[in-house]
Amino acid sequence: MTLLSPEPRGLLTGARYLAELDDGRELYLDGQRIGNPAEHPAFRPAAEELGRLLDLQHQPEHRELLTFKDPDTGLRLARAYQPPTTLEELRVQRRSAEFWHAEALGQQGRSPAFMASIAVGVHDFRHRLGAADPRFGANAEAWYRHCAQNDLVLSHALGDPQIDRSANPLDDPDLALRVLSENENGIVVRGAKQLTTLAPLAHEVLVYLSASFTQGRAEQFVVWFALPLNTPGLITLAREPLGTAPWGHGHPLGARYDEQDAMLFFDDVLVPWDRVFLLRDADLARRGLARINAWSAYVGHIRYRERLRTLLATATLLAESIGVSQFRNIQEDLGRLAGYAELTEYFLDAAENRGALTDAGLFAPGDTFASRVWSAEVAGDAVEIVRRIGASGLLMQPSPGDLANPRLRPHLDRYMRGRDIDVEAKSRLFRLAWELTGDGFGQRQDLYEYVHRGDLARNRITVFHRYDQSATRARLLALLDDPAANVQEART
Amino acid sequence: MTLLSPEPRGLLTGARYLAELDDGRELYLDGQRIGNPAEHPAFRPAAEELGRLLDLQHQPEHRELLTFKDPDTGLRLARAYQPPTTLEELRVQRRSAEFWHAEALGQQGRSPAFMASIAVGVHDFRHRLGAADPRFGANAEAWYRHCAQNDLVLSHALGDPQIDRSANPLDDPDLALRVLSENENGIVVRGAKQLTTLAPLAHEVLVYLSASFTQGRAEQFVVWFALPLNTPGLITLAREPLGTAPWGHGHPLGARYDEQDAMLFFDDVLVPWDRVFLLRDADLARRGLARINAWSAYVGHIRYRERLRTLLATATLLAESIGVSQFRNIQEDLGRLAGYAELTEYFLDAAENRGALTDAGLFAPGDTFASRVWSAEVAGDAVEIVRRIGASGLLMQPSPGDLANPRLRPHLDRYMRGRDIDVEAKSRLFRLAWELTGDGFGQRQDLYEYVHRGDLARNRITVFHRYDQSATRARLLALLDDPAANVQEART
Amino acid sequence: MTLLSPEPRGLLTGARYLAELDDGRELYLDGQRIGNPAEHPAFRPAAEELGRLLDLQHQPEHRELLTFKDPDTGLRLARAYQPPTTLEELRVQRRSAEFWHAEALGQQGRSPAFMASIAVGVHDFRHRLGAADPRFGANAEAWYRHCAQNDLVLSHALGDPQIDRSANPLDDPDLALRVLSENENGIVVRGAKQLTTLAPLAHEVLVYLSASFTQGRAEQFVVWFALPLNTPGLITLAREPLGTAPWGHGHPLGARYDEQDAMLFFDDVLVPWDRVFLLRDADLARRGLARINAWSAYVGHIRYRERLRTLLATATLLAESIGVSQFRNIQEDLGRLAGYAELTEYFLDAAENRGALTDAGLFAPGDTFASRVWSAEVAGDAVEIVRRIGASGLLMQPSPGDLANPRLRPHLDRYMRGRDIDVEAKSRLFRLAWELTGDGFGQRQDLYEYVHRGDLARNRITVFHRYDQSATRARLLALLDDPAANVQEART
Amino acid sequence: MTLLSPEPRGLLTGARYLAELDDGRELYLDGQRIGNPAEHPAFRPAAEELGRLLDLQHQPEHRELLTFKDPDTGLRLARAYQPPTTLEELRVQRRSAEFWHAEALGQQGRSPAFMASIAVGVHDFRHRLGAADPRFGANAEAWYRHCAQNDLVLSHALGDPQIDRSANPLDDPDLALRVLSENENGIVVRGAKQLTTLAPLAHEVLVYLSASFTQGRAEQFVVWFALPLNTPGLITLAREPLGTAPWGHGHPLGARYDEQDAMLFFDDVLVPWDRVFLLRDADLARRGLARINAWSAYVGHIRYRERLRTLLATATLLAESIGVSQFRNIQEDLGRLAGYAELTEYFLDAAENRGALTDAGLFAPGDTFASRVWSAEVAGDAVEIVRRIGASGLLMQPSPGDLANPRLRPHLDRYMRGRDIDVEAKSRLFRLAWELTGDGFGQRQDLYEYVHRGDLARNRITVFHRYDQSATRARLLALLDDPAANVQEART
Repeated sequence: MTLLSPEPRGLLTGARYLAELDDGRELYLDGQRIGNPAEHPAFRPAAEELGRLLDLQHQPEHRELLTFKDPDTGLRLARAYQPPTTLEELRVQRRSAEFWHAEALGQQGRSPAFMASIAVGVHDFRHRLGAADPRFGANAEAWYRHCAQNDLVLSHALGDPQIDRSANPLDDPDLALRVLSENENGIVVRGAKQLTTLAPLAHEVLVYLSASFTQGRAEQFVVWFALPLNTPGLITLAREPLGTAPWGHGHPLGARYDEQDAMLFFDDVLVPWDRVFLLRDADLARRGLARINAWSAYVGHIRYRERLRTLLATATLLAESIGVSQFRNIQEDLGRLAGYAELTEYFLDAAENRGALTDAGLFAPGDTFASRVWSAEVAGDAVEIVRRIGASGLLMQPSPGDLANPRLRPHLDRYMRGRDIDVEAKSRLFRLAWELTGDGFGQRQDLYEYVHRGDLARNRITVFHRYDQSATRARLLALLDDPAANVQEART
Repeated sequence: MTLLSPEPRGLLTGARYLAELDDGRELYLDGQRIGNPAEHPAFRPAAEELGRLLDLQHQPEHRELLTFKDPDTGLRLARAYQPPTTLEELRVQRRSAEFWHAEALGQQGRSPAFMASIAVGVHDFRHRLGAADPRFGANAEAWYRHCAQNDLVLSHALGDPQIDRSANPLDDPDLALRVLSENENGIVVRGAKQLTTLAPLAHEVLVYLSASFTQGRAEQFVVWFALPLNTPGLITLAREPLGTAPWGHGHPLGARYDEQDAMLFFDDVLVPWDRVFLLRDADLARRGLARINAWSAYVGHIRYRERLRTLLATATLLAESIGVSQFRNIQEDLGRLAGYAELTEYFLDAAENRGALTDAGLFAPGDTFASRVWSAEVAGDAVEIVRRIGASGLLMQPSPGDLANPRLRPHLDRYMRGRDIDVEAKSRLFRLAWELTGDGFGQRQDLYEYVHRGDLARNRITVFHRYDQSATRARLLALLDDPAANVQEART
Repeated sequence: MTLLSPEPRGLLTGARYLAELDDGRELYLDGQRIGNPAEHPAFRPAAEELGRLLDLQHQPEHRELLTFKDPDTGLRLARAYQPPTTLEELRVQRRSAEFWHAEALGQQGRSPAFMASIAVGVHDFRHRLGAADPRFGANAEAWYRHCAQNDLVLSHALGDPQIDRSANPLDDPDLALRVLSENENGIVVRGAKQLTTLAPLAHEVLVYLSASFTQGRAEQFVVWFALPLNTPGLITLAREPLGTAPWGHGHPLGARYDEQDAMLFFDDVLVPWDRVFLLRDADLARRGLARINAWSAYVGHIRYRERLRTLLATATLLAESIGVSQFRNIQEDLGRLAGYAELTEYFLDAAENRGALTDAGLFAPGDTFASRVWSAEVAGDAVEIVRRIGASGLLMQPSPGDLANPRLRPHLDRYMRGRDIDVEAKSRLFRLAWELTGDGFGQRQDLYEYVHRGDLARNRITVFHRYDQSATRARLLALLDDPAANVQEART
Repeated sequence: MTLLSPEPRGLLTGARYLAELDDGRELYLDGQRIGNPAEHPAFRPAAEELGRLLDLQHQPEHRELLTFKDPDTGLRLARAYQPPTTLEELRVQRRSAEFWHAEALGQQGRSPAFMASIAVGVHDFRHRLGAADPRFGANAEAWYRHCAQNDLVLSHALGDPQIDRSANPLDDPDLALRVLSENENGIVVRGAKQLTTLAPLAHEVLVYLSASFTQGRAEQFVVWFALPLNTPGLITLAREPLGTAPWGHGHPLGARYDEQDAMLFFDDVLVPWDRVFLLRDADLARRGLARINAWSAYVGHIRYRERLRTLLATATLLAESIGVSQFRNIQEDLGRLAGYAELTEYFLDAAENRGALTDAGLFAPGDTFASRVWSAEVAGDAVEIVRRIGASGLLMQPSPGDLANPRLRPHLDRYMRGRDIDVEAKSRLFRLAWELTGDGFGQRQDLYEYVHRGDLARNRITVFHRYDQSATRARLLALLDDPAANVQEART
């Protein structure tokens, strides 16, 4: 087992995490090879915020919630890596994830907790993988344990490159990542993955989905595996950083939570055999998708709820700060936003109520796929409510430099204050709202809500196909067979 | 106890129900006093359909689900009248209500099961009513037992007359039902109630809500009581019947499910003391509202889900019948409709997951108030999807008379058939769809979804006020106090 | 010229119109052959209302606006039949159509004025028809003059039968009306037309459109012709009447304006050669569509504006009558509705501003196709605003019978009045609003707005294909070729 | 006349414009006093782009369209400053403005042409101003001539500071700019103006609107005047620049078109008497608003149409570049966007058709106020369509630095190309789309569409109040007085 460490290192600390990022990965930004992302201004703040959150696991007051004792090793591991076996254990997972995402204001789509829950899904699915090939089942389990026992920060690579959505990868193999060859050491893969969130800041990446194999049957595109980001031949290209700014106008939210997205290029990368979990079995891959994502869908809703709560609290503070919070139309808008947060909580509750044991003995939250469509539908409106309330004030706020200028300051105090709030506090509030909803960072967050749940039209069609109409349909057809049965229609 | 029968009659049969409607009530339609609604063409079909459903309780295959054995009397009573004490018992209630509303295609907003669950709420709240006045608690309990043990069909009267929404009942007492006087026999009430659904077909009406007392403090408007519909001085004015039609074009759905709505006029009606449950205590009344409706809100969602399923199955059948069910935009619309039905199920699941014991020892579903707002928001769209798919075919379908005409028939067979469906079946299907969504009956059903959940804007504002933002707000304020804490902003 | 009357009869009167409907046409309702629609309760009120409007042409105060002097015959003819040759003449047409549609509250989609403007379009297009076959040009012109000089009430038949939208008429010829054969007397057509509005009350029907020939190239489906409704073999099947009602609750609006829709069956109908305008030339037919409808599209907007104004005035009266017209959210809704009416007026103004002379010398309003999409998009919302304001009051209003009952009347006076309006006036107002928006008639009117403009998705795509992007596209491509031209990007 | 130059300088060149910005104005950015905006990286690119556009006036091929010969001075002046006296002249203005805004891709909300048309409005209104005080009329006219003859770049200051929307300036005078005192030299004003777009790059600012005086009657807030931006005591505080970026990812659109917004602080500024146009006359000020903005509203629509066309062409290019332009749902979305652009053109046409001569003899476009509401309503959706089509590609595109890296380049060529487009062109296209819709610049542009037309709810209410319902209302009331007149309701 070439890539798995022999000795588990246990729970991460912030310091260890930052140190481990310096692993020689081939990472580029704006054409420059980045030596160590943890020391580069475009990545450092987000890495440090991740480190801060990881350190919370070690604080005595949070340890019980955020960690558990691994029965095998006796180590304390991150709660998100614990496979729940009862509803109660699932609810502990929920509270743990709520804590994390509340700390991060719902801004981290690919939080370690989210990805750990996919590793739990892989663990749960190991028997099925093993039924196809015993090595694959063992590989999956070994990888899960490796991740859990070393508290790894993971990412996953999903979408195919956005080259030509009307073309077929059988005609143009660049369109999807593919298995080029295999040898005694492993398989060689070539291709690219679009927009792998958090890749510059993760230890490993899990590859398991391609639109190409869910649609077609070309087995060369069907493969599940995981690799460290410093694997030779694996190139990470970061997008333009959105949490940095040239002037002195603060962007602390973006700096902390720009989790980055990256293209991954697989330049004929060797995936060792012990990192392969599935090969060429499209049916198994399709069935596995819903299974391994059962817990992450639940964690995703927890994260989304915190995002909605952040938008709601921000909108409410904005409204109060400019004296409009008593207006009925503003309250109605805030009520719509509060309703979004509340409905998201209902979906979590429903997932628990529908939960059941898997064939591997884990307690999985029930499927609430239709809520995914709903989430994508309302995401833009939630942002829009904040923007409408903040309006022009989102753009026009003094910077710390402005506030420090004695010629300007009296005017700022007088004309840029709000209702019961001074200019310093108000300007910080509005700039936070602008970051959340308006500038590049905020718009990337909004776009993420739209794209990461998959194509909206396709998901709606899936909801239709999944819905069991048989009982209602039978009743209607019976009624149509004899519409007047038992009813004497009233005529006059 | 003047109005309560000494001997419980147990489960209703259809025949007994129809006979009991002939109780001398003062019911008017189009200016005519109606002697017995069960024998009048405008009411008979809906009464008979109710009777048919009540008879199902007696069928051996449904008895276990639809009834329970009353521990006090040993009688079998309707399941909806059983006070659940555990989650499991609540889920039995759910299955029972699902059965009823599936039979009625989600068309009966005021089904006996819905109203029975409010009686259960009154039973649950009896101790609080009794704390204000011991007689009231005892009255409430006696009334619940009377209803349950005689399987009464109930209605409730909510809205104030729609006279002048900007006026105050303190200035114009006609605006709300009020207590005029009291004497040794009871209290005398005067006024009116708007749109009491099912009143012409119910045994009794429960009066417990007025916008006037939830807003103001005028104690003369605060009263809870229940009365038989044949109480002297209580006048029931039915609206225009919507399930009847002058021509031979079938309207079987409307005929069956036009549950009627009526104005109630209280012409100085004496309410005997043993029918009074609350008097002049506005705070208690306000607190009681959510409590006594906990189960009915849950049953209301069950009913709504069946309505949505009926709309979905109808839309799907329409699409298949004219060869459009494979079009992606149609499938996307059907997916939106299926999503509405699915989300409604999540809300039911959430209510179970949030359920808890009341102080009276009953297991109450958790509150999902925000889903009420959502339900009203999507109701019109659900109907619109069916209408858009059916389009002009909703209007133009042959009647039985047309089909029977030998000159017309060959043309109907040829040009008014559909895809894999003959003209007879297709015309019945489209006419059902028209009844569901287009004609007076269908539009009344749609309007009901919009109005019976209360004013949408006010409900949104309520969601805002109820939402606990404190944790997120505190986190944001801490961040705003020191935006740069732990973050070294990236500048270049 | 077999079917054209030798002697022009000039302007219709109501009496002559009603008499002329008794022409032996083969009209069915509910399986019964209707002898004379003008004497049948399902058709009489709408026919009489049409007659009343036709009589206005003869009133001295309206004659100048509603009629013009035909230069050929010296007869006064209906203004709508006048071919405008200048912008000023077009504006007179507009005022004339505004007068008519205001009188009819925007409820007559197929008003005589609307159809006359299509006859004007045929007149305008006669040279092109004649270029294909000189007889066809002459036929078209003779038919236009016949219609104009006898003031005929016309209909047109558009949609194919709604049998199977995924099938092809080449595989199943019943799917579209087709030319079966031709002989020395004319052509023989077989098939059906879906939902020909006003057919039971019109003199003639113009047939000129089929989805089949705009998509495919099968020339047997390509034909333009016009026929009297009493042509042998032409069967008219009326749909269920929506303006009649069994109880005493008034439906005067529906009675007046249920213009009826009907299936037409062509049972191997001989179309005389002098009634054929186009045959087998799909390209010409396609090009002709926009041309002959130039004026009717304009008149259609005039009608729609009056409908929107009727909805607006009704909503405002409703709001005033129940004391909500000062609420800001109600005013905002009324403002949206007023905006719809106002924008429709802008589209009319734009059509005038874009107007130009045709190659036949007529002044045609400019095309505003995109406004057709907009109109269909907002139609449902306009109705919804009225319904939301009226709410439960739309359902619950006393009938004349109720008002006449002395036991009920005091209660109606007290509890069913409104703000500054007594119960009689209020109940009439709310019942009008219910007819407009809620009952079968109102829903048919709403559905008409949605379906008569053609498929919404297809129309949107047409807007895209028609839009000339070339200039903007060229500018963008130039910019993309050299994004930094003339700009020194600011870096810090 | 202290501030007006004695000798007209005629048409601006880019070079003269850049030079004139160096006028000693008190401009701040991030706490720093900016000496000359034309030489500062945050302002230079936008100033140079303005200069480039101004230079087009001098090119022989555009001179005829973009300039006119001033009859008084014989100078050629900018077309936008020409007061149109006929519809034809107005249409020349339109073509001229279309040229400018097409060049600027619809990104300059406060283009010189837009503001010049307000100066024309002041010129048109001079007689009314003069009727109140002859000096004011003369001042207005002199100022208009000064601006026109020197081709000044203007801004205007509208909104009050966003301090407390529920408070009243009578209680807290800081809430609105006010006249503090007057003396023989002029009036002294104190206060601030929110978000004066283009102020850092304009010669002068026109002040004429405050929500305070349109609502209340406090005459100290009622004043119209104009001042150069370098007037002593007038402080301009620029917001955070949005067209600059720290990394090498190009932002050429933002650099060019970030027209800046600024707070203006009036630190007891003396406005010379000859710059005062109106004082304390709230009624006149209110009436003047619509008048002086008649032309600018028209120019604003021209600009908006170009923005919509830019969004449409961008969306179409995006769709083509990734192979989705043939998908029906994409074409439907593009059709909605094309419809927005098309409707905007109809509004321009309508304004021409409704145009009329003012009492000062100018030809003014007709009012299309309701289209302003529509414009704000659809603005966000137009942006959203582009974002949905671009999706994740908006975020992930290589920078010039990435493209220049030989290790990366082969992978970029292979995996980041599009359909028939190489990676260089595709990445420039997507980055343009991101600038337009996603990053800080694009979001500011979108927010501008929402806020600069005024509060949406208030505007809707204004549409309602302005709409003349009298004719429809009278007709409905007549019908309600006698619903059965001329109609024999059909009963069966």
